[in-house]
Amino acid sequence: MSAPLRLRRAAVLGVGLIGGSVAAGLRHRGVAAEVIGYSPNDDAQRAQALGLVDRATDRLDEAIDGADLIVLAAPIPVLPGLLAAMHGRLAHDAVVTDCASTKRSVIAAARAGLGAGFPRFVAGHPIAGGERHGPEAARVDLFEGCVAIVCAHTQAAPDAVERVGAMWGALGARTTAMDPVEHDELFAEVSHWPHAVAFALCGAIAAGERADAARRFAGAGLRDTTRIGASSAQLWADILIDNREAALRCSRAFQAELGAIADALEAADREALAARFEAASQWRRRLAAPGATDTE
Amino acid sequence: MSAPLRLRRAAVLGVGLIGGSVAAGLRHRGVAAEVIGYSPNDDAQRAQALGLVDRATDRLDEAIDGADLIVLAAPIPVLPGLLAAMHGRLAHDAVVTDCASTKRSVIAAARAGLGAGFPRFVAGHPIAGGERHGPEAARVDLFEGCVAIVCAHTQAAPDAVERVGAMWGALGARTTAMDPVEHDELFAEVSHWPHAVAFALCGAIAAGERADAARRFAGAGLRDTTRIGASSAQLWADILIDNREAALRCSRAFQAELGAIADALEAADREALAARFEAASQWRRRLAAPGATDTE
Repeated sequence: MSAPLRLRRAAVLGVGLIGGSVAAGLRHRGVAAEVIGYSPNDDAQRAQALGLVDRATDRLDEAIDGADLIVLAAPIPVLPGLLAAMHGRLAHDAVVTDCASTKRSVIAAARAGLGAGFPRFVAGHPIAGGERHGPEAARVDLFEGCVAIVCAHTQAAPDAVERVGAMWGALGARTTAMDPVEHDELFAEVSHWPHAVAFALCGAIAAGERADAARRFAGAGLRDTTRIGASSAQLWADILIDNREAALRCSRAFQAELGAIADALEAADREALAARFEAASQWRRRLAAPGATDTE
Repeated sequence: MSAPLRLRRAAVLGVGLIGGSVAAGLRHRGVAAEVIGYSPNDDAQRAQALGLVDRATDRLDEAIDGADLIVLAAPIPVLPGLLAAMHGRLAHDAVVTDCASTKRSVIAAARAGLGAGFPRFVAGHPIAGGERHGPEAARVDLFEGCVAIVCAHTQAAPDAVERVGAMWGALGARTTAMDPVEHDELFAEVSHWPHAVAFALCGAIAAGERADAARRFAGAGLRDTTRIGASSAQLWADILIDNREAALRCSRAFQAELGAIADALEAADREALAARFEAASQWRRRLAAPGATDTE
């Protein structure tokens, strides 16, 4: 058991649901002597007003100055720019991590952006979230009992890997190490592509002639099946584009299964249909108990 | 306000989740002086042991003898045979209804099976259910606050329509009249086809190389999206085959939307992807509050 993590200054870049919750957790658990929130918009000011951070800024250099932990929690498309802007400005003992839903591209962006500072970067992905967003949705206990995946690249400094793990531990999460390629393939399957399916189901109904009636008669089944279809269109477009190849592999496998179901239905082949449903149903019934992980 | 429904003898044919709950509701609310449960297997005996019915039988003639209300709650494929077997054996004042998820085929089966008794038949569909099944899953309050759709055909006797509505009212449900063709189109969209989608999502993951890892890392998003994929494969194969044409229309609309999403992803066209997700998300966010209906 290592000593509890004690940070001098934590900088959280992007303070929406995830970043705001990281900041609040570090602040309220006394992990960091100071927690600074950065955003180019007024999110950081709102986060400060909500007590999530000690100090707010819209200047990146001010945010990272002297910080020994920097947590990127901004949208995927802005991460490369943020990483490049940190080049040569990090404290010598700084550790940089992120919270994005994809890991390969952010590691590549850190390699390109941080230069000699690359060993100080360790990628992470807390499996937590929700349809709500912004600093107002942040919760000090968001990561309590959840899983945080840590994808350390081969050149990562051991103390950096340790600090990122200790941060998630301090926030109440269990950490799991995973290869970034495997991470992106797995999360395409359990999260990214299922979002596309839920959006497609909502989109098809919305474009149909029964869009209003369907809304009125949507029961628990449709409600659950489409719940993640209410998520942020922008956020999920970014994630799917970023993890495009893995998502397209899932798309092909899903469309093949769906096509086989549609063919069996077209042919009124009840046995073929029931056999496919049975295999699907058996997989679903054997899911681990809820709460083992809790993800978007 | 009409007088409360008072029945001499209610026969419930099939006493699983739905039939068992109808029987228990009629019995425990004192709506019927006697409630008889029929099943060809031991479901009816178990229903009696559970207190859902007064009397159990595996003989259809005994079940319907003298009954003034007969509720079909058996699987779709056996309904035509049950209806035909009732021909000429109904009490002069008997009313027959059903609880199936599709309405056109059961009305056709009633017309073919009941002959001169067809005006005594009124189709119904309580919007309630769950993944559990069998008499042990039945609940006396299953229909409390739910919607029951009544699809009266044009030759239905007014007193039969009234009795079926009164039955659902006595069980705590609000009734909504609907044309059977419209019912089948609408429920293909909000229930039947979404089950096929959930089965396809589970089936594709189950057949992939990450079936076990996906089970371990399935979070709230995938869990909700696939929940109805744990439903009975046999029941849903029956429903989809029975409502095949409407389900195939939904299949084509869904596959078109999904194909457009996959094409945008393939082309890395972020704007097109975000626009489709946004339209979908807007539809989902405007769903009526949960509990307005509660369906499978």
